[in-house]
Amino acid sequence: MTETRRRGRRPSGADTKTALIEAATEAFAAQGYDKATVRDIAGRAGVDPAMVNHWFGGKEGLFAAAMQIPVNPAEIIEGALRGGREHAGEQLVRTFLHVWDTTGGGVFAGLVRSVAGHELAAKLLREFVTRFIFGRLAKEIGADRPELRGALTGSQMVGLGMMRYVVKLEPIASADHDTLARAIGPTIQRYLTGDIDI
Amino acid sequence: MTETRRRGRRPSGADTKTALIEAATEAFAAQGYDKATVRDIAGRAGVDPAMVNHWFGGKEGLFAAAMQIPVNPAEIIEGALRGGREHAGEQLVRTFLHVWDTTGGGVFAGLVRSVAGHELAAKLLREFVTRFIFGRLAKEIGADRPELRGALTGSQMVGLGMMRYVVKLEPIASADHDTLARAIGPTIQRYLTGDIDI
Repeated sequence: MTETRRRGRRPSGADTKTALIEAATEAFAAQGYDKATVRDIAGRAGVDPAMVNHWFGGKEGLFAAAMQIPVNPAEIIEGALRGGREHAGEQLVRTFLHVWDTTGGGVFAGLVRSVAGHELAAKLLREFVTRFIFGRLAKEIGADRPELRGALTGSQMVGLGMMRYVVKLEPIASADHDTLARAIGPTIQRYLTGDIDI
Repeated sequence: MTETRRRGRRPSGADTKTALIEAATEAFAAQGYDKATVRDIAGRAGVDPAMVNHWFGGKEGLFAAAMQIPVNPAEIIEGALRGGREHAGEQLVRTFLHVWDTTGGGVFAGLVRSVAGHELAAKLLREFVTRFIFGRLAKEIGADRPELRGALTGSQMVGLGMMRYVVKLEPIASADHDTLARAIGPTIQRYLTGDIDI
């Protein structure tokens, strides 16, 4: 959409990016994902709307950046489904551990601090978790009750992140990815595709 | 132990309790659970060691109070095992939801804020989770690898608390206890007694 509206204004680099993230954080928190528009966010940041595509690949990527999640949600979904739906549980655990370990868990811990302290951050995370990661994964897999399945999946993944990077509880804190994928993968698999008896 | 050492000094009420909790928080954080002694904590608080039994039922209860966990760990274990080991998963979910809902989730959310912000709080929580709740439950149930089983159990329970009380993600935030116990109970049951394939 903004793709067709480039007016040739040059990105001013890191400043533009920072201004967009700040404006986006405010706009998404105040209006939610749907109502906040790229045009409005760019206006607040004082830059051309085309910069959103340039720096973030679109509105969704800007949202992920505002949430300080250094990963494209589409890549996580793709990673989880790479081995087929019957291996989605284990693959999702592996994909997240890979992303989190890459930052030493710092991004996850920062997110928890932010969410624990601010209702707005919690609201943004709800939206992110539901729409772009776990809820969407559950929908793509096509099981019944995708909202509940997505939320259950989110609860185990967030708990894994808490134990590994925030509480740093052993043996989870230093377990290798194989161990955790085999131990926790079946939980996620059941939440996504199994009989959850409700 | 301190039971036999009462010297008749009167409790001065809420002040004594508060002073003991403050002294205990410092002592447990600095020395860990084992090395911190009731006598030393009472000394820091300027009260008779017998007050620890009087107000907290002993060192373990004082530790739970310092962690701001308004529940006796022994009661949680007992609640989880009430229906036999083959129902421990579902019962543990029910027991925690009951305790958390009683405070509106405020205590859980406060604990997360505290843990996310302070390495010392995280250290105390590690000790609490491992020794008094999930680790002990796994040991009492008698399965192999109790540390890993306890940590996995903790990861799902902490994630449930995060989603219900901090992120407030629906449908978990307002689901009834039966729904959550049936959806999440089997996860905990597998972590405690099942084949975790590692």
